[in-house]
Amino acid sequence: MSTQNETTALKTSKELFVKMVVSNWELQNQRLNGWLAKLSDERLLEPVAEGKNRAVYLLGHLVAVNDGMIALLGLGERLYPELDEPFVKNPDRSFDEIPTVAELKEKWTNLNAVLTDYFAGLDAEEWFTKHNAISDEDFAREPHRNKLNILINRTNHEAYHLGQLIF
Amino acid sequence: MSTQNETTALKTSKELFVKMVVSNWELQNQRLNGWLAKLSDERLLEPVAEGKNRAVYLLGHLVAVNDGMIALLGLGERLYPELDEPFVKNPDRSFDEIPTVAELKEKWTNLNAVLTDYFAGLDAEEWFTKHNAISDEDFAREPHRNKLNILINRTNHEAYHLGQLIF
Repeated sequence: MSTQNETTALKTSKELFVKMVVSNWELQNQRLNGWLAKLSDERLLEPVAEGKNRAVYLLGHLVAVNDGMIALLGLGERLYPELDEPFVKNPDRSFDEIPTVAELKEKWTNLNAVLTDYFAGLDAEEWFTKHNAISDEDFAREPHRNKLNILINRTNHEAYHLGQLIF
Repeated sequence: MSTQNETTALKTSKELFVKMVVSNWELQNQRLNGWLAKLSDERLLEPVAEGKNRAVYLLGHLVAVNDGMIALLGLGERLYPELDEPFVKNPDRSFDEIPTVAELKEKWTNLNAVLTDYFAGLDAEEWFTKHNAISDEDFAREPHRNKLNILINRTNHEAYHLGQLIF
């Protein structure tokens, strides 16, 4: 195989892998969107099971954690850093005032559109570079802890809470 | 870059992808094992939340579905095909007789050891070949639907039910 073909094979291979990871993230989003479309805002204010988190808390949590990817992947400024306090750093019902279900649904939809745009603009090669929460030294030793790995991790995180929401 | 170096770069790259996916699968297994270690067998016979599946059903479900990867990835004969009937094809409490919690825990541990061995013996290149539930024609059009994609998908599936178990 010529060097030209080999370079193309490497690029194609990385693009394929990025597609696998991004499409699995999209699949989780689709499942969550399908579930959101079926339930009233009132239902989202109830606990997902007796004594458990409210669905609205889990939705806010997913918006906040996925929004965190924008900073972690060096894509730009986070959209909703103010959601960390009520939905990540503190448990459900810590605050009397939280965004409404309608507001959170809008943020969720907007965030996914913004992330989709960012991801589409990332070259496959960039996905394999280090993210912003790992040192140069650690990354040299553990190159699998790259940007794409963050998306794999956040997709599993979303699946985890989706399992609770769908309960 | 010489052709030799390029070939090495492609191989290294694919090995890195495989490591990313396998290590995320292992992470979910570790989390599930940590949770299993903390709970009594009696507790696993209770529903994970009021009116929901019993933990024992979710454990049997995960053993059966992950065991299915052995056939799907062409690795060998499935270990526990008999678990499909009570834990995949039918809802919880369809059968009076199901394996005990101790038996399911043992199967879970054994399955993960067997899968880990199979995965260690798979060349990175093989992970990017088609699995046994997709036609040659579909795979030619959609090469991202390969063996590694099955493991990404099953890892998300495990995270989904882990979210319910940990409830």
